[in-house]
Amino acid sequence: MVAVAILAAGRGTRMKSDLPKVLHPLGQRSLVQRVLDSVAGLKPSRRLVIVGYRSDRVREALAEYPAALEFVEQTEQLGTGHAIQQLLPHLEGLDDDLLILNGDVPLLRPETLELFLNTHREKGNPASILAAHLPTPKGYGRVFCDSQQNLQAIIEDRDCTPQQRQNHRVNAGVYCFRWKDLAEVLPKLSTNNDQKEYYLTEAVNLLSPVTVFDADDYQEILGINDRKQLAESYTVLQTRIKDDWMAQGVTIVDPQSVTIDDSVLLHANVVIEPQTHLRGKTTIQAGSRIGPGSLVENSTIGENVTVLFSVVSDSVVRPETRVGPYAHIRGQAEVGAGCRIGNFVELKNAQLGEKTNVAHLSYVGDATLGDRVNIGAGTITVNYDGVNKHRTTIGDRSKIGSNNTLVAPLTIGEDVTTAAGSTITEDVPNDCLAIARSRQTVKPGWRPKEKL
Amino acid sequence: MVAVAILAAGRGTRMKSDLPKVLHPLGQRSLVQRVLDSVAGLKPSRRLVIVGYRSDRVREALAEYPAALEFVEQTEQLGTGHAIQQLLPHLEGLDDDLLILNGDVPLLRPETLELFLNTHREKGNPASILAAHLPTPKGYGRVFCDSQQNLQAIIEDRDCTPQQRQNHRVNAGVYCFRWKDLAEVLPKLSTNNDQKEYYLTEAVNLLSPVTVFDADDYQEILGINDRKQLAESYTVLQTRIKDDWMAQGVTIVDPQSVTIDDSVLLHANVVIEPQTHLRGKTTIQAGSRIGPGSLVENSTIGENVTVLFSVVSDSVVRPETRVGPYAHIRGQAEVGAGCRIGNFVELKNAQLGEKTNVAHLSYVGDATLGDRVNIGAGTITVNYDGVNKHRTTIGDRSKIGSNNTLVAPLTIGEDVTTAAGSTITEDVPNDCLAIARSRQTVKPGWRPKEKL
Amino acid sequence: MVAVAILAAGRGTRMKSDLPKVLHPLGQRSLVQRVLDSVAGLKPSRRLVIVGYRSDRVREALAEYPAALEFVEQTEQLGTGHAIQQLLPHLEGLDDDLLILNGDVPLLRPETLELFLNTHREKGNPASILAAHLPTPKGYGRVFCDSQQNLQAIIEDRDCTPQQRQNHRVNAGVYCFRWKDLAEVLPKLSTNNDQKEYYLTEAVNLLSPVTVFDADDYQEILGINDRKQLAESYTVLQTRIKDDWMAQGVTIVDPQSVTIDDSVLLHANVVIEPQTHLRGKTTIQAGSRIGPGSLVENSTIGENVTVLFSVVSDSVVRPETRVGPYAHIRGQAEVGAGCRIGNFVELKNAQLGEKTNVAHLSYVGDATLGDRVNIGAGTITVNYDGVNKHRTTIGDRSKIGSNNTLVAPLTIGEDVTTAAGSTITEDVPNDCLAIARSRQTVKPGWRPKEKL
Repeated sequence: MVAVAILAAGRGTRMKSDLPKVLHPLGQRSLVQRVLDSVAGLKPSRRLVIVGYRSDRVREALAEYPAALEFVEQTEQLGTGHAIQQLLPHLEGLDDDLLILNGDVPLLRPETLELFLNTHREKGNPASILAAHLPTPKGYGRVFCDSQQNLQAIIEDRDCTPQQRQNHRVNAGVYCFRWKDLAEVLPKLSTNNDQKEYYLTEAVNLLSPVTVFDADDYQEILGINDRKQLAESYTVLQTRIKDDWMAQGVTIVDPQSVTIDDSVLLHANVVIEPQTHLRGKTTIQAGSRIGPGSLVENSTIGENVTVLFSVVSDSVVRPETRVGPYAHIRGQAEVGAGCRIGNFVELKNAQLGEKTNVAHLSYVGDATLGDRVNIGAGTITVNYDGVNKHRTTIGDRSKIGSNNTLVAPLTIGEDVTTAAGSTITEDVPNDCLAIARSRQTVKPGWRPKEKL
Repeated sequence: MVAVAILAAGRGTRMKSDLPKVLHPLGQRSLVQRVLDSVAGLKPSRRLVIVGYRSDRVREALAEYPAALEFVEQTEQLGTGHAIQQLLPHLEGLDDDLLILNGDVPLLRPETLELFLNTHREKGNPASILAAHLPTPKGYGRVFCDSQQNLQAIIEDRDCTPQQRQNHRVNAGVYCFRWKDLAEVLPKLSTNNDQKEYYLTEAVNLLSPVTVFDADDYQEILGINDRKQLAESYTVLQTRIKDDWMAQGVTIVDPQSVTIDDSVLLHANVVIEPQTHLRGKTTIQAGSRIGPGSLVENSTIGENVTVLFSVVSDSVVRPETRVGPYAHIRGQAEVGAGCRIGNFVELKNAQLGEKTNVAHLSYVGDATLGDRVNIGAGTITVNYDGVNKHRTTIGDRSKIGSNNTLVAPLTIGEDVTTAAGSTITEDVPNDCLAIARSRQTVKPGWRPKEKL
Repeated sequence: MVAVAILAAGRGTRMKSDLPKVLHPLGQRSLVQRVLDSVAGLKPSRRLVIVGYRSDRVREALAEYPAALEFVEQTEQLGTGHAIQQLLPHLEGLDDDLLILNGDVPLLRPETLELFLNTHREKGNPASILAAHLPTPKGYGRVFCDSQQNLQAIIEDRDCTPQQRQNHRVNAGVYCFRWKDLAEVLPKLSTNNDQKEYYLTEAVNLLSPVTVFDADDYQEILGINDRKQLAESYTVLQTRIKDDWMAQGVTIVDPQSVTIDDSVLLHANVVIEPQTHLRGKTTIQAGSRIGPGSLVENSTIGENVTVLFSVVSDSVVRPETRVGPYAHIRGQAEVGAGCRIGNFVELKNAQLGEKTNVAHLSYVGDATLGDRVNIGAGTITVNYDGVNKHRTTIGDRSKIGSNNTLVAPLTIGEDVTTAAGSTITEDVPNDCLAIARSRQTVKPGWRPKEKL
């Protein structure tokens, strides 16, 4: 069994924010949440989160975390060794290994952690450290080991000779300890260094032998200290997600300009056009083309749908429907198959049957439309009387004229026609023409007076 | 004379698609179409397309190709050598060279192919192969040649010594053979290799001397095996197109975010703002500024036009007109010079004269507007009575009031004014005021009942 | 004291433009303006701009420059030495140093120029040149110096031996001279070279010792000769700006897709989503989230505002307001705190109080709205009678029905309700219901005749 401890006590001064660093979002989830999620597969016996700066906010942000967390306070920030010392009273007698992660290193893959842990167990050494080869290792402690992957030394960048600095293998700050061994040496740490802090690397030096495990992909160990690194980590994460979908048969025309949350599900033969963003619990089915310039959030898009320069949120769009440009579908709208939702159209909490068109400049809210309904350009459903919301219902094959105002609560039957420019305030039975507009009069010879 | 054979029989499993790989689109054209187009300048005596997986779809996709194609079936996929063996019955007695291309290598420039062919002819050897120096040659067969550019060996990546692997010159899989010589050795190919396939490289080995021709730009030989490579090839293609337009005097503010089809024509001193996409048969004339966030498709944009966050398709916009943000011009619309098409305006199959404004929230479809017409905000042309489409005509200098509903068929004369909020159903002669709205009444002391 | 001379006489043939090269815009400012701005901190005694090609346009473009400029004509383009020779009659007796800059090298930082000048002064040599280490130095003159940073030679790329070409330290074409010394050697320049031009490097060779000053960041010395280099320089500039804001606590989700003018002011904890452009005198306050797909220009955005797929120009948006998607706020609009400006809404020169909503498909222009006003979907303020603009005023808590047409000049009181579909032409006192629409009639059994 393995217990997991996550260092999450720092403020992260370079973020220039009151928000504790580990709570900054990377995509949908905070840094610390990503770290927690990355160990789920290890089924940890304990999950300890070491908190300090604004610990109330960290506790609150993780209050709903779907696994039991133990928060350990580190009231002063006296180094990584000091942070882990805080665990001593909590882990007395623990017989497990302890995996130590940083709350600001969110890109480690579960597979890598599993391999690291397995290697630690196979080797049977009291400690293991995670290393990686960085292209630009400046600032990182260098890891030296023998041919058996046993640690010889960790030398801080500033203490390296020029030749030692040529070694690009760096310490990722991720450790696995046999807890009993670690617990013995933790009290012995000193602050005998430039920063006057307790370093966990000293604990590593007090144990022997120590296994060095190299991560294949150096990007996994990148930490986040400022907003630029936050943006860079987001790019790493996005590249992973997009490469993965492309490998599964999704065409992404210009991957660089697209963002896809890791909660999104795409089917093969979907095409994502440039500058398109897929967020939350979104599914896009085969043959659909989304973008350019679109945002789809918490929505399900059926097969062979096109969405062009539009925003779809919290809604369902069924197969063969065309959306946009400049449509906004939101608020649990459900658009049937083969519909046409055109430019400058807002659908909110509206259910549309099949082959129904709302093609231009309309607001359809809190409404139920049947099949093959046509809504004329410029039509508004008046769902709000200033106090309450009411529904509009329109039957199959009815044709609402242009620039209509439909005052809810309102029921329009099947095969109804309404005249252009009408304000419809009363229910209309099947097969009727409803009309509510003024007669036209003409004043000949009239010109705007200022022009005369 | 040269005959051309294109290998287009593979499925392309890693594309994760039922569509044969060579039919995947790269920009506007499929991979195989791009390869066919790249040889047009060579004026081939024959064009043979070797098809296999879903050959019906490949044949159908190329049915309208503007040059005669011969399709040769390779019913089993037994390697490149086997593919070319299928040509034997078709090319009996051919006295030409045979240029062999891959249907999934779409970035070769016509100039490169011409140079390759000319070098082949000048050298007079029975075979020539195309090579290039890849920065990351992993997986490619390495090409070794003497100082005369004669081939010494092609060694597959897996068979290379570590030192041989340092050679970055790789086999592009593009060959030119004296057909008579190739035809003699083709029957001798064996399947004496790991994959148990017939390799065309064996045919190369059976001929001597073989000329090695190096392509200057390694990106030309990149093949497409998966969607990521498809995206990468699109980037290569787009960089070529955009670099070319910049060299011709077009300003592209952020080239990376812009896509331009190769069928687009730009004049000097056009400015393309970020996140803009120019597609199909589109022309943009001098001094115009397109974007950000715009899509122009199959349209002609005159001089000094601005298009901001808008979509223009299948239409003409004349000089000095301003479009957007959030306008949609489509369906053979023609917008005159000096017009203003503003936000949330859709024009469809509408002809506008000069200095006519449709500035806000309007739909103008199937309409003819004269010069200096002003369309009030929220105005809709009702071109569809539920069964047929009808036209609206508005004469010079007429002013349509806001929120008007114009019910076609309708003819409004010159210098007409219509009152705001009117539904105009009957023709209006010149110089008239037309009005069709209700009188206002006021109920004092009224409040929504729920609030009382 | 230092005088500054800027070479700005060239046409820039490769720009393919009639506009003199130095007038091409890089972001908001022309190349030459950026160069002028970069020396402001040096408080130059003189600012000389050497003009030639279309000097009238350069003079005109700089007519409003906020410091005194002297234009010196170079009627023929006979080289950099010839250009500086033109200064002789203008600078007779000058006792200052002369800093020579190129009008097409716009990325030099003021700090770098200050360091360069200070080094020149400390060293006390008659001349100093600015150098930098380029990753790809091809085409640039190489700078060789001794261990004291004294110049040994400048050798043009074409005259370098292969070994000399390995030296990546290049001449940036930026010089500082003791003017008196330069003035003595300037008349001695010859045209004894391939191009038959007078080179300023010859003047450098005639003086000794010459200080070499290395710029840390080679990107500062990049010049602009064509549109591709213009785009590349814009990227360099944008990266600086965005890195700087990220260091100050701004989150930029996908920095590559965002552009920010150098006149923009951002507070910490602003979030900039992808494909967003901030231009002109724009300020965004803490906690606001702008984008994706938005343009904010010359506007002030308060705290905790969201702007999604929208355009805001020349306007103010107060805290906690939500804008978009697809809103357009412009023309000195002022939106109060806690408002909701929704899709397909245009605000132009409108003042809105607090918690006022214009949520759908409306045009509100030349209007003053109180607090907690609600504007129904599809409502238009008719501010233009075809000749003049008039204002609409709406009091606190009034609710304008959907698809209303408000004909200005118009004053609507407080707590007013207007009925959906009304055209309001006359003022409405407080606490009234105003209605102006037709009664509905229904014709049973009616179907479109073509269908019968």
